[in-house]
Amino acid sequence: MSALLNRRDLEFLLYEFLEVASLCDYERYAEHDRETFDAVLEACEQLATEQFLSHAAKLDENEPQFDGEQVHIIPEVKQALDTYCEAGYLSASFDAELGGMQLPWTITQCCNAIFAAANVGTVGYGALTVAAANMLNAFGTQTQKDKYLPAMLEGRFFGTMCLSEPHAGSSLADIRTKAEPQEDGSYLISGTKMWISGGDHDLSENIVHMVLAKIPGGPPGIKGISLFVVPRTRMNEDGTLGETNDVHLTGLNHKMGWRGTVNTVLSFGEDGDCRGYLLGEKHKGMSHMFHMLNEARILVGLESTALAYTAYLYSLDYAHNRPQGRHADEKDPNSAQVAIIEHADVRRMLLKQKAYVEGALGLLLYGAHMVDQHAVTVDEERRREIGLLLDLLTPVMKAWPSEYCLEANKLAIQVLGGYGYTRDYPVERLYRDNRLNAIHDGTSGIQGLDLLGRKVVMYDGEAFQLFIREMNNTLRKAKHEETVSEFLKAFEQAIALLQETTNSLIELAGKGESQLFLANSTTYIEMFGHITIAWVWLQQAMIASKKIDSEIEDEANFYQGKIDACRFFYRHELPKIEAQANLLQAADDTFLRISNDSF
Amino acid sequence: MSALLNRRDLEFLLYEFLEVASLCDYERYAEHDRETFDAVLEACEQLATEQFLSHAAKLDENEPQFDGEQVHIIPEVKQALDTYCEAGYLSASFDAELGGMQLPWTITQCCNAIFAAANVGTVGYGALTVAAANMLNAFGTQTQKDKYLPAMLEGRFFGTMCLSEPHAGSSLADIRTKAEPQEDGSYLISGTKMWISGGDHDLSENIVHMVLAKIPGGPPGIKGISLFVVPRTRMNEDGTLGETNDVHLTGLNHKMGWRGTVNTVLSFGEDGDCRGYLLGEKHKGMSHMFHMLNEARILVGLESTALAYTAYLYSLDYAHNRPQGRHADEKDPNSAQVAIIEHADVRRMLLKQKAYVEGALGLLLYGAHMVDQHAVTVDEERRREIGLLLDLLTPVMKAWPSEYCLEANKLAIQVLGGYGYTRDYPVERLYRDNRLNAIHDGTSGIQGLDLLGRKVVMYDGEAFQLFIREMNNTLRKAKHEETVSEFLKAFEQAIALLQETTNSLIELAGKGESQLFLANSTTYIEMFGHITIAWVWLQQAMIASKKIDSEIEDEANFYQGKIDACRFFYRHELPKIEAQANLLQAADDTFLRISNDSF
Repeated sequence: MSALLNRRDLEFLLYEFLEVASLCDYERYAEHDRETFDAVLEACEQLATEQFLSHAAKLDENEPQFDGEQVHIIPEVKQALDTYCEAGYLSASFDAELGGMQLPWTITQCCNAIFAAANVGTVGYGALTVAAANMLNAFGTQTQKDKYLPAMLEGRFFGTMCLSEPHAGSSLADIRTKAEPQEDGSYLISGTKMWISGGDHDLSENIVHMVLAKIPGGPPGIKGISLFVVPRTRMNEDGTLGETNDVHLTGLNHKMGWRGTVNTVLSFGEDGDCRGYLLGEKHKGMSHMFHMLNEARILVGLESTALAYTAYLYSLDYAHNRPQGRHADEKDPNSAQVAIIEHADVRRMLLKQKAYVEGALGLLLYGAHMVDQHAVTVDEERRREIGLLLDLLTPVMKAWPSEYCLEANKLAIQVLGGYGYTRDYPVERLYRDNRLNAIHDGTSGIQGLDLLGRKVVMYDGEAFQLFIREMNNTLRKAKHEETVSEFLKAFEQAIALLQETTNSLIELAGKGESQLFLANSTTYIEMFGHITIAWVWLQQAMIASKKIDSEIEDEANFYQGKIDACRFFYRHELPKIEAQANLLQAADDTFLRISNDSF
Repeated sequence: MSALLNRRDLEFLLYEFLEVASLCDYERYAEHDRETFDAVLEACEQLATEQFLSHAAKLDENEPQFDGEQVHIIPEVKQALDTYCEAGYLSASFDAELGGMQLPWTITQCCNAIFAAANVGTVGYGALTVAAANMLNAFGTQTQKDKYLPAMLEGRFFGTMCLSEPHAGSSLADIRTKAEPQEDGSYLISGTKMWISGGDHDLSENIVHMVLAKIPGGPPGIKGISLFVVPRTRMNEDGTLGETNDVHLTGLNHKMGWRGTVNTVLSFGEDGDCRGYLLGEKHKGMSHMFHMLNEARILVGLESTALAYTAYLYSLDYAHNRPQGRHADEKDPNSAQVAIIEHADVRRMLLKQKAYVEGALGLLLYGAHMVDQHAVTVDEERRREIGLLLDLLTPVMKAWPSEYCLEANKLAIQVLGGYGYTRDYPVERLYRDNRLNAIHDGTSGIQGLDLLGRKVVMYDGEAFQLFIREMNNTLRKAKHEETVSEFLKAFEQAIALLQETTNSLIELAGKGESQLFLANSTTYIEMFGHITIAWVWLQQAMIASKKIDSEIEDEANFYQGKIDACRFFYRHELPKIEAQANLLQAADDTFLRISNDSF
């Protein structure tokens, strides 16, 4: 059996690429060191394998059912989540005083990736709860926190995010859910929410919904949206569960994949008695929600990476062990068949997967590390910069893996051939699961608009210039490394092309061509993503190039593999940006100009 | 509800692009004219909608089940197939004297596409039977034909192709199924066959398996393979069904999609009493099977196109009708939402689908038309040329749609967003169905090897040069058309790039670098395919450009849409070949050189 993720690679990314252990120099993480991190990952892998992976296929085949009264989920899910909560993974990133392990975000994201690789459906309940708890922690009053946070962090209450409505998926400005203020300070919530993951189940004692709604009389559109805490079951003053809160399950959505996380349509206030509690400021709901959404988007990128990473390892293992055919120059049909890893195209598909998934994981852990650095950095200016970079790269960290790691999943199936297409092998399920990631929490198209229309231009392009500076820093360092010289010219050109292309688009915007400016933003984020991954790979290759002479054979092979994967990315992938840049600089409008009746 | 395929486009391709009606000038098709063709298509669409589409989702959710004794398939399948056979679709391409409609292959392929768009799982039984009947017709003795062919063409017997074995999927040289000659001229067959579509069911009275097996003492490898007719139930002399023929269902394969066509593992001769009958010559099994396989490969390309084409129409219809969000320059949040077809990125995804599916359908019908021309052309030299072109393009017609029409299916889901990912909308099923096409009947990698390693170099590159000549002919004609001038430079460069790249690869082969020559053949077929589709689009655009001034608004819109889709392909897709050509000319070997332990 292949591993969930490659532990050696995780260690490389954590300790050699990101030097995460140095976080322990800060007071916040002083209780930790590399050993505690390793122990957490080790235990995580064991738990994920024994309790999550073990029922992943069964859960996919037996998705949650709604009998009209309640949701039924196979018992393995609750059992796994109970162990997960007890072992402290749900609260792992939270402060010790809240009962958490106070682990760096980077480490808990590694855990998330391991759990997602094992069973993304089951761990989803936990991940959503962490995101909801983080938002509550950031914007809740002390009373609100006291009421819900401990129970959430213990895993007694799970959380959800309720944004979309049946008629308003990507267009949140149009939500209709109402919140009418009551004399006691609470609000009466009424409306229907769509696509609510973890919206109803009996896995936890209570469910804490984070709901976007409009207070009547507020500004129209986005600016009139507020955020509310809406428990499924109300809480008594003494902290015990009270009466039901008029939140009803209307139906389940039946998805292609990701079937384990129950996905619901919820109706709030059918009987006019659903209480919600304002979280944060009135009419600031969207900005508060983005606190959760940014985190969720990076998590989506990470999960997407994990689904592809584990499929890659599975297909690699299969390729090592499946005999089929012969080398092209072997003319004797009676000779033994060779393992398919010997065939050129299988090798290409494996190395492409490796270049995608290890590149993406590097980016996502870099992102997680920025979250940690943002939390501990004292220097205000540097702290602000880190925040800007994180903002800029969030849509990239969401969209690139959603698209390219799905492509990797496709290749994992292809390596297994007909077997890979059957439900007897996990690669087909992982592919179906991963198809969701380009859709939920903002489609790839929306990430493109966010990147080009908002992030690149914000503060007069400051974040973008910072990113260019970061890449140039890497380039400067790389120029001192003979061993990576083959990549430098291409990377330098890529940076220049990104600047040039971005400038030409911004010029368009300046001329008032706002529609044309954003028309190809999906292509822009693809190009931006490829350059970002090339940057991540160059950094990995620089580290590896210093160590390929290791006398330990496994180590030498590992580092050589990093160089080879980087080389593959630079030869097979990075050159694609040229056609993209040409398209963007030409500001193609073919699809804008075609008449609706000519499709 | 959207249509299965766009009838106007079918008519454009058949009568304006391919001028199929002129086939009726030949004696073979003298009974037909455009009116009979149209009537066939009209009736086909109706039958496909009423009897095939109507149970497509149900069949996907209720795949065939094996209870240990027999296979159970929902009754709608048999009902649909009975009607299909009665209406003459199964035998449509066969001679009138065999009871067929003697329709051109191009027309019957249109029918196949329409049925596949409706329900690829159900029509699969018929399509396999046609392919088996064609092979029997080509290589069978008169006695063999008399015994099976009429029953197959009436749909009383269905057919299969039995190539793969559990340990030999793509490497047929290694099959172990044995055929031991008996005194009566028959053979005793023994062995296990894998991935047999339509291998067991009660939809027909009998199943005629076309089985590859080795006669003991024959040459090793591919050269020792022979082809046998192996009925599930033996035939009495009087044509009635006799005793069972020792063919057993061992199990079913459970696939991601394409669930309607039962896919089986079959065991032949468990009791030492399975009779097979040699079809064609001893040890020529592979060459005979390629008669079926080439046809099957083009059919796979066509089905892949149909699955994407109908998903495109569905997503287009959805985009016209789903309100969501506003134009970027609409600042009033109280204004009405617009249909999502108004959004730039949705338009891009729609036009990309259109460019893929209408380009692919053009290529596939061109291929079908070559089959017809091959059958009727009297001039030996031209006939040979048509055969060569068909051989050359077969792997392209299989691989390009399998990859790019899957990409189109992915976009159809994306247009529908979260809804598209649910099983409530057909686009998710069509995506799952289409994922098979890059695998069965030779993976995309194998098509690449076939194209570059066999077809391009055969007869000293004659077929390849013919194709270049065909493309140059189009280019020459296009130079007289002012209206398509924008495409000419790019197309001319594409032809040059293909020649240059092919030459540089052949030079490698000449230097004995056979592994390096073929290492990137998957990239080669991608590039070759893109150029082929660009050629097909240029031809479509040339025709359309003469008619965009039509005074009938719908017609003008239709033709303008062709120009726009061609433009999209030339601006967004064709430029990708440059990076591919560079990679191929550099003969990248990164994935060959990486050590197996460095992945």
